[in-house]
Amino acid sequence: MQIVRTIAALRDRVADWKKDALKVAVVPTMGALHEAHLALVRRAKASADRTIVTIFVNPTQFNDPRDLANYPRTDERDHALLRREAVDLVFAPEPSEIYPKGFATKVFVAGVSEGLCGAFRPGHFEGVATVVAKLLLQTQADLAIFGEKDYQQLHVIRRVVRDLDIPVTIVAEPTFRESDGLALSSRNVLLSPEERRVAPKLSEALLRAAREMKQGHAAADVLARARRSILEAGFSTVQYLELRAEKDLRPLDGPSEPARLLVAAILGNVRLIDNVPVS
Amino acid sequence: MQIVRTIAALRDRVADWKKDALKVAVVPTMGALHEAHLALVRRAKASADRTIVTIFVNPTQFNDPRDLANYPRTDERDHALLRREAVDLVFAPEPSEIYPKGFATKVFVAGVSEGLCGAFRPGHFEGVATVVAKLLLQTQADLAIFGEKDYQQLHVIRRVVRDLDIPVTIVAEPTFRESDGLALSSRNVLLSPEERRVAPKLSEALLRAAREMKQGHAAADVLARARRSILEAGFSTVQYLELRAEKDLRPLDGPSEPARLLVAAILGNVRLIDNVPVS
Repeated sequence: MQIVRTIAALRDRVADWKKDALKVAVVPTMGALHEAHLALVRRAKASADRTIVTIFVNPTQFNDPRDLANYPRTDERDHALLRREAVDLVFAPEPSEIYPKGFATKVFVAGVSEGLCGAFRPGHFEGVATVVAKLLLQTQADLAIFGEKDYQQLHVIRRVVRDLDIPVTIVAEPTFRESDGLALSSRNVLLSPEERRVAPKLSEALLRAAREMKQGHAAADVLARARRSILEAGFSTVQYLELRAEKDLRPLDGPSEPARLLVAAILGNVRLIDNVPVS
Repeated sequence: MQIVRTIAALRDRVADWKKDALKVAVVPTMGALHEAHLALVRRAKASADRTIVTIFVNPTQFNDPRDLANYPRTDERDHALLRREAVDLVFAPEPSEIYPKGFATKVFVAGVSEGLCGAFRPGHFEGVATVVAKLLLQTQADLAIFGEKDYQQLHVIRRVVRDLDIPVTIVAEPTFRESDGLALSSRNVLLSPEERRVAPKLSEALLRAAREMKQGHAAADVLARARRSILEAGFSTVQYLELRAEKDLRPLDGPSEPARLLVAAILGNVRLIDNVPVS
């Protein structure tokens, strides 16, 4: 497994693969890898001839500088995990490689990036859209694998790829959960032991709400009950809890078409997000 | 020469060429072709194995709907001219192919898109940056040829390509002029015979100003004189007349480094732009 730090070195390697008509998959990550990332890596390896993992904690998508400062960084461990998965290439650039002096371009996505996390994290999806467009064009991958846990992000990325005609296929992997239901996230390590015991109440509330909606209960009542149960469990704030169309993230009054329940809530100093299908 | 209307047909053709490791150049145009476009086409043909010309009057870069409505369209003539140049492929999509329902993405470039035309044409360079990124990714060309006549546009495009890591080389061709000095432009056909006689006074004023600056005259005085002479010639407005660095379009007080004089002025109902080097 080769670790490269520059776009030039990355492109040299990829150019060799393309010359041999090999199919290339990329898994963009911010490091602090866990089992959910490895599931994406395995999906990549099963779908392509060569797999690239990018590790880049993208400063422009952090609206909160404390969140950026606290974001876990576990480079050595990440490399060891990826070596064990027999990843072909790790691209781990410095911020100055991605945003050199004079950098001045932003990719902005209307619609799907509005509301939900977009309402609470100003500039976040602009940062995501811009860096993902760059990583896809730097790697020139045929496939890119993303997790459904960041469901709105997945929609933003699909939109950017389609709208800018980036020649890549986006593949989505279902959310990877702990045995108690907590969605895997690099931020989970920031939870205290007590908070860690409370955290699974988020997915429990979502799953219960999805079940109740499928049984025909009024969506507004179900959402109000779920919100209460999340707060009673020990979360300090529910930033949003909404039903949206799977197709285009349009707000829905009820599960009249394939839908997602999406939530963001604060537990201690940690912001957790999750989503489940309602179909 | 094949004329295709869809991205899918364009990509099929390009994929065949890439399989044979052929070098592909693209000349993006808005049609209404004239000798300056053909100079770009010849440059493309001399630099690559296959040449694509795109013809797309991009609605999103027109800040003035009358300008869009009046923009000359000469499809049959354009095709004939390109056939004579032995262009390999013309990509002439409908707006709905480029901006299908649900389209929601904009590419925004700070810095070089501010001031000059950016100050007088709100949204113009966003439209340019977005459509050029798309055309480059649709064609997956190795080279793209642009004219220096749209000098700020050239800077915006270079910036987008560098910042988004679009794998293409941008090639600039010097401005093509009539024998009386008027820079070729599709909008020149909108000039009345009398306006057409006045129009070359714009490049005359620019060239004289550049000469005077090189001789050491104070830039502010030179620019004031040039502005007066343009208005006295019959232009109704000088939107801007500025000295900028060639490297990054930074405003300059004098030609202390390779510089450009750039102008936009209104003659009758037509807005003309031009620029000359001061080195």
